[in-house]
Amino acid sequence: MSFARVAIIGLGLLGGSIGLAVRESLAGCTTTGFDADPDVRRRAGVRGLVSRVCDSAAEAVADAELVIFCVPVGAMEQAAREIADVLPTDAIVSDVGSSKAAVGEALKKALPGATVIPAHPVAGTERSGPDAGFAHLFRQRWCILTPVEGTDPAALARLSAFWEALGAKVELMDAAHHDLVLAVTSHIPHLIAYTIVGTASDLEGVTRSEVIKYSAGGFRDFTRIAASDPTMWRDVFLTNREAVLEMLGRFTEDLTALQRAIRERNGDALFDLFTRTRDIRRSIVEQGQDDARPDFGRGDHDG
Amino acid sequence: MSFARVAIIGLGLLGGSIGLAVRESLAGCTTTGFDADPDVRRRAGVRGLVSRVCDSAAEAVADAELVIFCVPVGAMEQAAREIADVLPTDAIVSDVGSSKAAVGEALKKALPGATVIPAHPVAGTERSGPDAGFAHLFRQRWCILTPVEGTDPAALARLSAFWEALGAKVELMDAAHHDLVLAVTSHIPHLIAYTIVGTASDLEGVTRSEVIKYSAGGFRDFTRIAASDPTMWRDVFLTNREAVLEMLGRFTEDLTALQRAIRERNGDALFDLFTRTRDIRRSIVEQGQDDARPDFGRGDHDG
Repeated sequence: MSFARVAIIGLGLLGGSIGLAVRESLAGCTTTGFDADPDVRRRAGVRGLVSRVCDSAAEAVADAELVIFCVPVGAMEQAAREIADVLPTDAIVSDVGSSKAAVGEALKKALPGATVIPAHPVAGTERSGPDAGFAHLFRQRWCILTPVEGTDPAALARLSAFWEALGAKVELMDAAHHDLVLAVTSHIPHLIAYTIVGTASDLEGVTRSEVIKYSAGGFRDFTRIAASDPTMWRDVFLTNREAVLEMLGRFTEDLTALQRAIRERNGDALFDLFTRTRDIRRSIVEQGQDDARPDFGRGDHDG
Repeated sequence: MSFARVAIIGLGLLGGSIGLAVRESLAGCTTTGFDADPDVRRRAGVRGLVSRVCDSAAEAVADAELVIFCVPVGAMEQAAREIADVLPTDAIVSDVGSSKAAVGEALKKALPGATVIPAHPVAGTERSGPDAGFAHLFRQRWCILTPVEGTDPAALARLSAFWEALGAKVELMDAAHHDLVLAVTSHIPHLIAYTIVGTASDLEGVTRSEVIKYSAGGFRDFTRIAASDPTMWRDVFLTNREAVLEMLGRFTEDLTALQRAIRERNGDALFDLFTRTRDIRRSIVEQGQDDARPDFGRGDHDG
């Protein structure tokens, strides 16, 4: 049902984790891998991220049944062009990008006639690079596939089975809707985190050293997200521009209302919002998408 | 040097943690405690948060050398009034509130003539109530004291020694400066987190169930903060209004600039900010104010 030969293009956090997860969970599946950076290829070899590290993308995909692009979304089209001439005609092409409409178009454009099924495993950490990946990254996490009308159902079933074998739960979604949902649950949170960390670095009245010392009051949680890979996130905002701008508009409206509530000393309005937001947290913990321990077991408590 | 009898008014996360920390770290120190909520008093007795749970604040402070108010900052003045007639003349009065200028004034007003030294241990979790506290909450965390001119140096030294005995590192600061620093490192992060969680709950195009399912993309980190105690945080924003509004203004300016960069497809501006923000994260981890493990050891990885 699943694949015997998988090619992974890009061996950072995501690509490396897929390779390690395949080795752990898919007996009999061989992986080939390529990364444009020679240092990354070397580390990938040392860590055994894939069965065989190749010297070119073309070599990696030559015999593949599934090709997964794990490069920043802005680099997808160029990466796909590099394999256009050698891609096996029956191979399935997918990716792990955080925006889907733009990536789907880029892959189709670079690989006309190929079976393209974009994918987005909603999982990650703030680390990046070939040393960041681990086999369990996708366990209990959702992987969203965004097939288009006319996508081969058999190919879709095989790709779904592949992700499920890696521990993920698969969901199908329209690419445009994916981009809207992820703008809320991922892109705007990252944008806000990057912003507040930037704001805090540039103040005159408060030193950077003070910001660091007293970060346990909440700020540190934002710095984690704001340490994510800059290239990847630049590309996310450029390729999911419309949905991000729309959601940012909503956020700004709500923030302005809260600002007014503070200015007008409207304690009831503040209390109402602060009460409402607790329910969502509870649901997230109940559904296994986060750890209920205070500070996620950061280790500074005995509970 | 330290205290033999400490009264804790308010037995939630902070008050309870102080009681447990004293029991663990200060042999020979007896604690009395009171909470306005009878259910909280009962749980405090069951968990042994203090040596003796009292039926009134007056009873709790009758014999105390140190009184610590651990109630929401908006409730400090009233709580202090309740003990004004019985407070031993040589007792030191302190608190754990997240805003300091307003609390200092409130305590001085309610307890004229008393030795008041406001304090803020920068530590906490999103949990609240008598079951949330733990003895190690203050370890390796900063506790900021905001004495005024003329504060008795001996009293200041004793209070510092008390917090150090509980594992905290003590820093002295002007109350107004504290309020500005914490607006950046704690209050604005909470305000933003509450806002985005509220925004995400109210969308038409994206369901609440989708927000919860795909929260691992970054959103879940915000929900943790946005699950903090509503009363406490309402009071923080009302009592640290000016500093919060000023810092919010800075944040909004920066967010608007980033919004423009996205609109204008200015990838370089995005990349520059996203690169700069990584350094702060590194410093926070180096200084022991956060855990470097991906996801703080949430447990969904094998690294």
